[in-house]
Order: sequence, then C-alpha cells, then structure tokens
Amino acid sequence: MTIGRLNHVGIATPSIEASLAVYRDVLGATVGEPFDLAAQGVRVCFVDLPNTQIELIEPLGEASPIHGFLAKNPAGGQHHVCFEVDDIAAAVADMAAKGARVLGAPRIGAHGTLVVFLHPRDMGGVLVELMEAPIGAGH
Amino acid sequence: MTIGRLNHVGIATPSIEASLAVYRDVLGATVGEPFDLAAQGVRVCFVDLPNTQIELIEPLGEASPIHGFLAKNPAGGQHHVCFEVDDIAAAVADMAAKGARVLGAPRIGAHGTLVVFLHPRDMGGVLVELMEAPIGAGH
Repeated sequence: MTIGRLNHVGIATPSIEASLAVYRDVLGATVGEPFDLAAQGVRVCFVDLPNTQIELIEPLGEASPIHGFLAKNPAGGQHHVCFEVDDIAAAVADMAAKGARVLGAPRIGAHGTLVVFLHPRDMGGVLVELMEAPIGAGH
Repeated sequence: MTIGRLNHVGIATPSIEASLAVYRDVLGATVGEPFDLAAQGVRVCFVDLPNTQIELIEPLGEASPIHGFLAKNPAGGQHHVCFEVDDIAAAVADMAAKGARVLGAPRIGAHGTLVVFLHPRDMGGVLVELMEAPIGAGH
C-alpha cells in the first residue's frame, strides 16, 4: 500500500463558528458551511486551501468522540490527519498484515466515501485516517 | 492576507527514525533524509506526499523547543500546520493589525525561506507557521 494525497487535517474545536472565523477573517481562507455528521457525533466544516483541506470538528451530542480530546485540549487542536488510499479494503488488509491496529470497520466519512482510523500508538502518536479517494479526485 | 498552500504538517516525535519507518514501511510513503536544524534545536525529516509534506521533528539539544511538547505527548503527535504566504512581512503586519500574536521575528525555516509562528491562543488552539513561499513554487 502507498498513501496518496493528504486529504485533510482534522482540527477539533470547542466552537466551529469561532474557528472558522479565524480561518476566514484572520487567515483569509475560503470556508464552507458547517454541517452535522450525526452518526459520528460531530459537526464539521471544511476550510479550502489550494492543495488540501482543513476539517474543523466540533462535538455533537453527549457521546461525541471529540469530548475526550477537548477535555485534554480545551482550546482545541490538531486531532488527526487523513490520507487518501485507492482501495480501503486492501489498505485495511495491508495494515493488519503489518501489525498496525485498525480501529473498527470502514464506515462512510465526511466526503461520502469509506474511511477507517489507525491507532495512534502504531502511527508515532498521530491518529491517522485512511479514506478511499473520491472517484474522479484525479490524484 | 490570504494563506496559500498547506506547505506541511509538523509532527513531533521522540524518534525520527521510528517515525520515518512508519511512513516508509507501513504507509508506503517516500521519505527524505533527516537533517539537523541546529539554530532551531530540531532534527527534521520530510515525508513527501503528492500534494504536501509531513515534517517530522525530533528535539536536538537540551534547549530544543520540542521537549515541552513531548513531555505532554510522550509518543509524539501533531505539533503545527504551516501555510504558505506570498510576503512574510506583509503577513506579519496583517496579523498584528488583526490582533493575532506573532511569536518573534521572522527567521529562516527548514525550506530556506522566512517563517514565523502565530500563537495557538489566537488560532483555535493550533500552532500555525506562516512561511514565505519558495520562489517558483508555482502556487
């Protein structure tokens, strides 16, 4: 397996409105509209850069997986990196063969394609998301 | 000011050799050769992705600014994001005018161009590096 593009950097925040204001008003970037990903317990907003995206993530609901991160990092911070792969099933099999722990089964991510997360302990302390590249992404 | 490309994601690690092995051997990415940036107290290695880079950072010397981060995150983790700007002096002036705290004067970064860091408290908890884009970067 070879990872492809960095699809996005996931950044957790206690306030998606405050964070998107930083990217839009202070850094001058183009930001999208926030939307709920209820199945994953997060509210999400993408910041568009010329070569990749920032994914702002706010907890949604009491069971959100982001609460733990924000308890340790109340101001927010870098939460994960997402790399594109051609075939998520092949990537999962390859990770398993190499002893890198995969967290759960592939599920639909914020871009509508299958994603899976890898355990930070096997990734140099970084939570890594692998995402099946959207069709026609041209990578 | 408008930020340009995400030049790199900075990832701190207690062992640059162990981390580059993850990117090279587990994730199948192309990694460069580690090198010392003694003036900044770090040892650095870039991982090349199709659209951006990962900058692996290991402390170099007792006064390295990375020691504090690793004390809080012993396994390593995401340390900063670096966005390209056309003119670092104009960017610094714009940040000051908008009340975003700039940490010190611009200095030469790992790519040989001027860089500056912005305070995480003004950036949604994220340490942001602004980097004057290399000439001919084509962004």
